[in-house]
Amino acid sequence: MSIHQDAKQIIDAALLAAQPDSAVQKALLEMKITEKGRLLVVSFGKAAWQMAKAVSDALGDRISQGIVITKYDHVMHELPRFMMWEAGHPIPDDNSFKATAEAVQMVQGLKKEDTVLLLISGGGSALFEQPLIKPEELKDITDQLLRVGADITEINTLRKRLSAVKGGKFAQTCQPAQVVSIILSDIIGDPLDMIASGPAYPDSSTCEDALRIINKYHLTLSSAAMDLMRQETPKDLPFVTSLVTGSVSKLCDAAAQQAKKLGYTPHILTASLACEAKEAGRFLGAIAQYHQNSNHSLAFIAGGETVVRLTGKGKGGRNQEIALSAAKEIRGLRDTLVFSLGSDGTDGPTDAAGGLADGQTADALSALGYYIDEILQANDSYPALKSVDGLIMTGPTGTNVNDVSVLLIKRS
Amino acid sequence: MSIHQDAKQIIDAALLAAQPDSAVQKALLEMKITEKGRLLVVSFGKAAWQMAKAVSDALGDRISQGIVITKYDHVMHELPRFMMWEAGHPIPDDNSFKATAEAVQMVQGLKKEDTVLLLISGGGSALFEQPLIKPEELKDITDQLLRVGADITEINTLRKRLSAVKGGKFAQTCQPAQVVSIILSDIIGDPLDMIASGPAYPDSSTCEDALRIINKYHLTLSSAAMDLMRQETPKDLPFVTSLVTGSVSKLCDAAAQQAKKLGYTPHILTASLACEAKEAGRFLGAIAQYHQNSNHSLAFIAGGETVVRLTGKGKGGRNQEIALSAAKEIRGLRDTLVFSLGSDGTDGPTDAAGGLADGQTADALSALGYYIDEILQANDSYPALKSVDGLIMTGPTGTNVNDVSVLLIKRS
Repeated sequence: MSIHQDAKQIIDAALLAAQPDSAVQKALLEMKITEKGRLLVVSFGKAAWQMAKAVSDALGDRISQGIVITKYDHVMHELPRFMMWEAGHPIPDDNSFKATAEAVQMVQGLKKEDTVLLLISGGGSALFEQPLIKPEELKDITDQLLRVGADITEINTLRKRLSAVKGGKFAQTCQPAQVVSIILSDIIGDPLDMIASGPAYPDSSTCEDALRIINKYHLTLSSAAMDLMRQETPKDLPFVTSLVTGSVSKLCDAAAQQAKKLGYTPHILTASLACEAKEAGRFLGAIAQYHQNSNHSLAFIAGGETVVRLTGKGKGGRNQEIALSAAKEIRGLRDTLVFSLGSDGTDGPTDAAGGLADGQTADALSALGYYIDEILQANDSYPALKSVDGLIMTGPTGTNVNDVSVLLIKRS
Repeated sequence: MSIHQDAKQIIDAALLAAQPDSAVQKALLEMKITEKGRLLVVSFGKAAWQMAKAVSDALGDRISQGIVITKYDHVMHELPRFMMWEAGHPIPDDNSFKATAEAVQMVQGLKKEDTVLLLISGGGSALFEQPLIKPEELKDITDQLLRVGADITEINTLRKRLSAVKGGKFAQTCQPAQVVSIILSDIIGDPLDMIASGPAYPDSSTCEDALRIINKYHLTLSSAAMDLMRQETPKDLPFVTSLVTGSVSKLCDAAAQQAKKLGYTPHILTASLACEAKEAGRFLGAIAQYHQNSNHSLAFIAGGETVVRLTGKGKGGRNQEIALSAAKEIRGLRDTLVFSLGSDGTDGPTDAAGGLADGQTADALSALGYYIDEILQANDSYPALKSVDGLIMTGPTGTNVNDVSVLLIKRS
């Protein structure tokens, strides 16, 4: 079997293991949803439909009403008693705001015996949003943060303060009902106040943190937005119960197990990679160089979520940048391959899940007039990888538990 | 023994193994210096004195005349028949130019039976230099390259064309004498045309490469400098014999061996790390997070030479940035330590060899009002690490075979 076929099998196995269905059903058993009162389900994020489907299958007509808010093309089919919304990601759009307003409306006037079941997955920060400032300014601030390479923790710290639902505020809206929150984690270390900007979790970030970020990156905010930065978020929400399910560790473990089945000695390096994407690619490429003389097959696995530092206006994503950057380092190496993909199947604002490069990729790119350094500078990894069959296309996977990057060195 | 004591022992063992003395003496035996004619020794780079000392000890008064050109404070004592020069690094200064002029003068008027023995070590690019443009412009171009984060390969591609001695040109000057070149490699992969800008090796970089780099980084050059960019460098030097000795692999191997002696399971990740320093630190920190639950002690070792992207005007070096950046990621982790150092004992323009951080470093910095992100943004790692006893001070080590970064996780 070729190293490319191995890569395909490892990708498939990892994505299968990261599916939310069984995880959500297991969580429901643990959470013991009460038999009394109305049960409302609010599901948002990239895995919102799959999580809602799992709940619908398990609880059926116990559900009074539900809403799914997910990314475009992520609703597979209708579910009984659920409204279905698709909206913008990573930048919120009108649909995000309309859908969120529907959800906020749905949880008005509840009683103490009622329950709101929140199903939260990655991408929720953009998809579930009711801004306290004009959407244009919210978009502008988000753009500024992405451009300077702020990490997701920093982005969320600010967005919570600009929102009526983030940072525990949506849970406040559900009162006096009980809130049960099942979270498919997409942030390394599973910080509940950061995943989807923590709509039902006490916010650990402070006004001081927010102001520090604004100063650090020299951001421009209106005085209205600055006023919101100085308003503290909820620090105690006793009527909320939360459970995290699924995580990037499972993705890495599944990749390692499949690699082992295929004859590779797997080494999981980390499940919390958070550095710059192209630098991670260089690091993986440097690991590949050192282990070329190995007499057995090796797989190095790194899970996490890297960041892209925007220096251009091209099309691509962090996983594609990892693959492209690694391509330069593994140029000419035999039976050596690096791939990286987002478990949600969409890497950045593209229809690819990620990228893949082997020892021939850099030369193939050169032959077509692509220079890797220039492409990375332009953040334009997608067309380059596409031209050398280096995109990983999975379509929406129905889950979202970060990314996994794998270096394979195949020896017989 | 504490994890800090372990780190100290690993540092000492690695530096000892990387000493040039025995390597140079072994190389001399292989190179079979002829008994006929005059023997001139030209030694330059950070390890120039140690290499000259080894040759002086081995060949004694067979040497007609010699010159050492090294960094300030790197001459230990006089050697018979050698002129001693100390000069600027990483930016060449007047002494670099005067000393190089002496060396060029020394090899004038030689005969076919004469031999020039070149002893080349890292840092030679700055220390051995006779510019073809005004020194001010050379300094300006070098500054521009450092500021945009160009790697050493790119820097050397340009500097060769601006120099009378780099890119094989010094060897041409030695003709009709034979040239024997012993090289202590400080560039990953040991590319002979790049080490010290390859004064005695055919240049593989082309005018096209040079122009591409200028365009990539939008550099500003005078028309005189641009003219030099279009002049091709020597591609064939049949009267030169070269031998590489010492390398970063030995540094990594020695670190791994000592770690093993101390009870750690060592994993050499790479010997060719070349990514951005602070991103390498984050990667190592992420590896530390994943392996916290290990029930035995682990050492992850990465050799190479990272680069610093200048965004501020502070004092520091790439190894200090690795340690500081890792400090943030390993915050609060028990018995976990990351250190990184340059084998030459000087990291960037500082008197520290590198930096060291453990799980308490980040909190200690916070308590003193230092914020790691801001310090890295200002490239000001030195004072921060100094304040928490996080600098590695070795003094000049007499060798220069790149850097080594080590993550230790100690479990009993």
